[in-house]
Amino acid sequence: MKRDLDRLMAERNIDAIVVEGPDGLGSANPDFNYFVGGRKLTGTVIKKRGEPAMLIHSPWEQLEAEATGLALVPTSRWNKRAIMDAAPDVFSGEVEYRRQIFSDLGVSGRVGIYGTVPAGRYFALLSRLAQQIPGLEIVAEFDKDLISQARLTKEPEEVEIMRRVGRKTCAVVQAVVDFIRAGRADGDTLVDASGAPTTIGHVKQLIGRELAAQGLEAPQGVIFAQGRDAGLPHATGDESAPLRLGQAIVFDIYPREVGGGYYHDMTRTFAIGYAPPDLQRAYDDVRTAFEQVVAELKVGAPTKPYQDMVCTFFESRGHETIGSTYPIEEGYIHSLGHGIGLEVHEDFGFPSLKDRGDVLVPGAVFTIEPGLYYPSKGYGVRIEDTYYCGPDGAFESLTPFPKELVIPLDSSAG
Amino acid sequence: MKRDLDRLMAERNIDAIVVEGPDGLGSANPDFNYFVGGRKLTGTVIKKRGEPAMLIHSPWEQLEAEATGLALVPTSRWNKRAIMDAAPDVFSGEVEYRRQIFSDLGVSGRVGIYGTVPAGRYFALLSRLAQQIPGLEIVAEFDKDLISQARLTKEPEEVEIMRRVGRKTCAVVQAVVDFIRAGRADGDTLVDASGAPTTIGHVKQLIGRELAAQGLEAPQGVIFAQGRDAGLPHATGDESAPLRLGQAIVFDIYPREVGGGYYHDMTRTFAIGYAPPDLQRAYDDVRTAFEQVVAELKVGAPTKPYQDMVCTFFESRGHETIGSTYPIEEGYIHSLGHGIGLEVHEDFGFPSLKDRGDVLVPGAVFTIEPGLYYPSKGYGVRIEDTYYCGPDGAFESLTPFPKELVIPLDSSAG
Repeated sequence: MKRDLDRLMAERNIDAIVVEGPDGLGSANPDFNYFVGGRKLTGTVIKKRGEPAMLIHSPWEQLEAEATGLALVPTSRWNKRAIMDAAPDVFSGEVEYRRQIFSDLGVSGRVGIYGTVPAGRYFALLSRLAQQIPGLEIVAEFDKDLISQARLTKEPEEVEIMRRVGRKTCAVVQAVVDFIRAGRADGDTLVDASGAPTTIGHVKQLIGRELAAQGLEAPQGVIFAQGRDAGLPHATGDESAPLRLGQAIVFDIYPREVGGGYYHDMTRTFAIGYAPPDLQRAYDDVRTAFEQVVAELKVGAPTKPYQDMVCTFFESRGHETIGSTYPIEEGYIHSLGHGIGLEVHEDFGFPSLKDRGDVLVPGAVFTIEPGLYYPSKGYGVRIEDTYYCGPDGAFESLTPFPKELVIPLDSSAG
Repeated sequence: MKRDLDRLMAERNIDAIVVEGPDGLGSANPDFNYFVGGRKLTGTVIKKRGEPAMLIHSPWEQLEAEATGLALVPTSRWNKRAIMDAAPDVFSGEVEYRRQIFSDLGVSGRVGIYGTVPAGRYFALLSRLAQQIPGLEIVAEFDKDLISQARLTKEPEEVEIMRRVGRKTCAVVQAVVDFIRAGRADGDTLVDASGAPTTIGHVKQLIGRELAAQGLEAPQGVIFAQGRDAGLPHATGDESAPLRLGQAIVFDIYPREVGGGYYHDMTRTFAIGYAPPDLQRAYDDVRTAFEQVVAELKVGAPTKPYQDMVCTFFESRGHETIGSTYPIEEGYIHSLGHGIGLEVHEDFGFPSLKDRGDVLVPGAVFTIEPGLYYPSKGYGVRIEDTYYCGPDGAFESLTPFPKELVIPLDSSAG
């Protein structure tokens, strides 16, 4: 939470944090958006320990800047033209401009850097600044950085938004289920009232409309993958392929509200009309794994044992897992879940590789998503909900949606 | 163009380029998307001088990776678990993993770094790599970096896409004009058939629907700003405000095709029903400035004199400009234009501050957008088209849309 920032800065002996908001990134810059509330701004957030965060912003963006509630410092405080005119080249001028900003605002000592940036430009700028400002030490944190740790624990206001995004996402999935139910079978192909095959492309168009109707967007796409593709965790689905009865369909959707903000992430696996026995067995195993994990969630517990628990269970059911073999292409091949918020994947998880020491803390929002992948057999299964650990240590699903494999066709009823 | 990469690498004595494609950025990572064609992938592009570009990718993203046409190197070539298990901590493990990739692929010498990245994590990784790999020199270019210079000159295939995005963008603007024309006046307020005021929010909703109908998206928003807000270049418009007759409306739209790719950027200034004389005079001045610049465009010419030309003209018309006073809040307060492509603002322009040496080269795509801003008088004007300098040195507008200030109401005709 933002109120943890000063404590985190003290623990890490960081005197100031600098959060970059370069042009063109918008909602793809979660650290910056954490401070400016997703408003369309460029600039830099600077916070010294024990002081409120400041936003260095263009006077052109005064209205948006005011809406952030941050302490405002317009760039017109510095005469950039005079600085640039006096400099031998553009790079030197930009370094001097930034040096003056740091100097005038008292940014010195151990300074942590955050935000999403163009790699070369920023590496050059920081390296030169560190050379030119006596006493400036750039603190670059590789993982579990200060802002990721603040963002890890959501405030009640953030969780309320995430609940809403969860409900809206479930409404989109329900619309897809209703659409499929209303189709009919022509042999093993799903067709519409006119007899034309329903393709994954049709479903993706429907998903696009339903997302828009809910005020959601999916900047990182949507997975609606059938058969072999359902066995490849990141295959997004062949739009030209007709929907087939009895095939595994992995529907993984990770949208956020339009214009930025908080993501939801959920996956359901479906089979239209009926499920073949091997798919049903895999589905039952994944669902059992999911329920075992949920039943065992305990505030304060380290996350690694949950990953191990799922591997042990899947192996007892005859599946190969990443827990004993690495790398593997079939079976349980990934980790159990990840943090979520202003990014789909945040810096928290149930590790499949090295234990990073993550613990189920109050305020954490994360996914639970066991899966089994058999592309060679033409199917895959994943079930995923987003969970929240409340301040009282109780766990809450933010994904109110049933977990049923088979979508029966209304036309086959009775 | 991509075929310039080896020449640019030789000119800069760069042995290899590394283009990062970290998780979660998608289309907000233009350098990476330049290589992978906007496909939904994470990974790293590595190109050694004189050799084809390689994509280091997850085996889970094999299908998307194959579609890039790049030489593929799946990450399964390295045993990341063994590397992580042998490392004392996560950071050391990730450094060693990257060291092995560089070593096995022969990445050494002067290595340029590109792509959009999390600042702290990447700064930490690069600093440690530079320490640990003998002979590795990280080349961080502050501006006019190698990839920006390749991207500056568009290939015919890129320009054909940009023409199409331009036509689609104009269709959206036309739909808004048609919508406004169909309204009627109630005093100085635009109202619909039922007599309800038409607000900027209504127009923004229409823009959203028309963008979607054209297969466009506007991830950085749309400016539809009226009155005083039209005098603030980056004010996006007050959605609750009704449209008023005789007010300046700056409509600046910079969309791209859905899912990523190339942007268009255009601005029109409108007044509904009629234009007051001072707004009309400012409009005429901006339009004259625009046409003077277009008439003088010459391949091979430096860009700075065009900015100076516009300042001189505006000052002859009694406007204050950034050419003689800095900073200023009213008059001509910005630069004449910017490069455009996979980003709205690319590394090319008509400088208002220090001359960066830009020259109108064949293949460049850029905006021309003079404007005059008088928030204290309650108006602003900007006119913007996107232009292309063809291989023969001829300049082409990619924005086929008229430049008329007044939108007459159909209900007032005849």
